[in-house]
Amino acid sequence: MTTLHGSIDTPCFMPVGTHATIKGLYPKDVEEAGAQIMLSNTYHLFLRPGMEVIRKAGGLHKFISWKKPILTDSGGYQVFSLALLRKLNDKGVEFQSHIDGSKHLFTPESIIDIQRDLGSDIMMPLDECVHYPCTKDHAEVAMKRTINWAKRSYKHKNEHHGVNPARGQLLFGIVQGATYEGLRNICAKELVDIDFDGFAIGGVSVGEPSNLIYNILRITALVLPVEKPRYAMGIGYPPDILEAIERGIDMFDCVVPTRYGRTGTAFTSLGKVTIRNSPYTEDFRSLDARCSCYTCSNFSRAYLRHLFNAQEMLGLTLLSLHNIYFFLDLTRKAREAIKNNQFSEFKKEFLENYNNSSCV
Amino acid sequence: MTTLHGSIDTPCFMPVGTHATIKGLYPKDVEEAGAQIMLSNTYHLFLRPGMEVIRKAGGLHKFISWKKPILTDSGGYQVFSLALLRKLNDKGVEFQSHIDGSKHLFTPESIIDIQRDLGSDIMMPLDECVHYPCTKDHAEVAMKRTINWAKRSYKHKNEHHGVNPARGQLLFGIVQGATYEGLRNICAKELVDIDFDGFAIGGVSVGEPSNLIYNILRITALVLPVEKPRYAMGIGYPPDILEAIERGIDMFDCVVPTRYGRTGTAFTSLGKVTIRNSPYTEDFRSLDARCSCYTCSNFSRAYLRHLFNAQEMLGLTLLSLHNIYFFLDLTRKAREAIKNNQFSEFKKEFLENYNNSSCV
Repeated sequence: MTTLHGSIDTPCFMPVGTHATIKGLYPKDVEEAGAQIMLSNTYHLFLRPGMEVIRKAGGLHKFISWKKPILTDSGGYQVFSLALLRKLNDKGVEFQSHIDGSKHLFTPESIIDIQRDLGSDIMMPLDECVHYPCTKDHAEVAMKRTINWAKRSYKHKNEHHGVNPARGQLLFGIVQGATYEGLRNICAKELVDIDFDGFAIGGVSVGEPSNLIYNILRITALVLPVEKPRYAMGIGYPPDILEAIERGIDMFDCVVPTRYGRTGTAFTSLGKVTIRNSPYTEDFRSLDARCSCYTCSNFSRAYLRHLFNAQEMLGLTLLSLHNIYFFLDLTRKAREAIKNNQFSEFKKEFLENYNNSSCV
Repeated sequence: MTTLHGSIDTPCFMPVGTHATIKGLYPKDVEEAGAQIMLSNTYHLFLRPGMEVIRKAGGLHKFISWKKPILTDSGGYQVFSLALLRKLNDKGVEFQSHIDGSKHLFTPESIIDIQRDLGSDIMMPLDECVHYPCTKDHAEVAMKRTINWAKRSYKHKNEHHGVNPARGQLLFGIVQGATYEGLRNICAKELVDIDFDGFAIGGVSVGEPSNLIYNILRITALVLPVEKPRYAMGIGYPPDILEAIERGIDMFDCVVPTRYGRTGTAFTSLGKVTIRNSPYTEDFRSLDARCSCYTCSNFSRAYLRHLFNAQEMLGLTLLSLHNIYFFLDLTRKAREAIKNNQFSEFKKEFLENYNNSSCV
C-alpha cells in the first residue's frame, strides 16, 4: 500500500497512539521496532489538544514527530463507547466530551475536514458502531446510516480535492452490520461500489466470541476486492491476528501490547509472561529467547520483575516496547511466510508454541 | 579518572539510578546523552532486589545493562534519612527497612563487601551523616566515627584485595563535619593520610543555605590533593554545580533532573520551564533552542504540554531525558571552558542567561 508518508507492506500491525503518543515509547524506538504506520484517534485529538493546536503545529506528523504514515479513525467508535449523552440522527452525532462535558457535533463532513487537518495518510469515515449483542433491526439501521455517511464522506472529500491538502490522503470505507452475515454482505457490497482506497471491518471485537469475529471477517473479506487493503479494526491478540490474516485481512491495530505492557504482562513466543510472579525473581533469561528487541537484548526477567516491584516506570516502558516489537514481528514473520507460501505451517507452529505456556 | 569500566573526564555529572534504574530512561539514551558514569544507591539495592539476585546476575552492570562506570554510595545517607528505628554505635548501624520493616546491620566492612558484589567502579565507605542544623559536639562525634569507619573500610578492602574481585575497584574517603570549618579541616586531613582513590564531601546540601555549602566545599577542597578527584555528594542545581567547579570540585550527582522532569519542569539555558503553564499551549519552539537532545530535536513545548495535560508517561520521560542531557551538557561545556582557560567567562555568561528567566 502506498501513502503520502511512504509505502507499507501487508499484513501489518499498527501501534496505537491514542493521545498523540504510543504510551510510554519514543517514536524513534517504535520505528526501530519495525512499525511502518501508526494509528491515532480523531475523537481524542479533537478534544485534546484540539484542532487549533494541531493545525498550527503543521499537522499531526509534525506535532508528534512521526515521519511514517498515520491512520486516524473517525471517532465513531469513541463517541459510542466514551462520550457522554450522545444524540444521533442522520445529520451526525452530538455528544459531550468525557473530559469536560463540553458539547460537540461530528458529521461525516466535519470528520473528513478534521482528518484533512490532522494530515492523516489514511482517513476513516464517520460510522455508527453498535454494541454486542444487538438486535438485527438496530444493526440494520446503524449499517444503513453508516453507508449513507460513507457516501457523504467520499463526496465531501472529493469535492474538496482540488482546493485543499487532502489530495493524496486515502479514505477507507467501514463495513458494519454487527454479527449478521446478511447485513455485513449488503454493507460490504454497497461500499465496494464506491471507489474507496481500502476497506475496514468495524464493530468487531466488541465483546462477541472469537468464532463470531472470525466468521464476520471471513464472509466480509470474500466480498471485498483483493487488490485493496482490508483492515480489521481493533483486532487483536496474536492468535486473532493470525486467524484474520488467514481469512484475508491485511491491517490490524490494538492497544493490547502497550496496555498489557503497562500492567506487567509480556507476550512471548511461548505465551504470556506475568512478570511480577515470584518464579522470575532469579530468572536471568530474557523475556523471549527468540526476540531481538531492545528489552530482550539487554534485560532479564529478574531485572524487569524488580522494576515492577519497585514501581519503576522503566518496567512499563521496557515491557511495552517488547510487546510492540512482538506484534510487529508477528506480522513481519507472517509476511515472510506468505511470500514463501508457508503461512499455514507458520501459523500452526506459532500457535503450538504460543499455547504451550507451560514452557515459559 | 580511570575505572574498571572506562575513563571519565572531569568535571562530570552522574545521573542517579536509585532503584537500579535512572527513572524512566533507557540506559542507551542516557549513554547517548553523554553520561560517562552513573550513581546507584547501596541502601536501596541491598533491600530490593537484594544482594542474592544481583550476585547471581553477575553484578550490577550486568543486571541493569549499563556498560560504563558505576559509583555506589555507602548507604550512610539513606540509613539516616529513610530507614526506621536506627541504632548507631561504633560497630555500625542497625536499622529497619523503610519498605517492610525488616532489620539489618550495616558495618564498614559489610558495606565494602556489598559494593564488591555490586561490582561498583567507585565505592564509598560507610559514614555518619548529620542533619542541618547540628551542634558542633554532635557533628564532631559523627565526624570522628566517620574517620574511624573510613580506616576500617580501607583496611577491609585491602586485606581482601588479593582474594576477591575488588581489585581495581576504587574507594573514596568521605569528608564530614557539618558546617564547621574546623571539623571539615580535621576530617579532610585525616582522610588524606589514608591512600584513598578520591575524596567525597558528604553532608552538604542537607538543608543549609547555599553560601554555607559553597564555603564548606571551598575550604575542604583546599585540603584535598589536586591530583585526586573530589566529589560533592548530592550537588546540585546548575548554579551550584558551577560554583562548586570553581571551588575545585570534579564530580556531582543529583536526582533533580529526573525528579523535576517527572513533575513537568525543564531546565534550559534561559532558566526553568514549567511545561504545564498555559503560555506553552501554542508554543512550537523546542524547550531550549541551544539544546540538541532527542527531546529538543523532535518535540515542541506545545506537544510536551499536551502530554502532561493528558497525563501521558511520554511527557515525563522526554522531560527527564532533556534534563539529564542539560546537566551533562553543562559539565561538558565546563570541561571545554576549563581547557580553554575561560571558565569564569563561561560561568558568568551561563548564569546571566539562566537567571534571566523572563526570556523563557
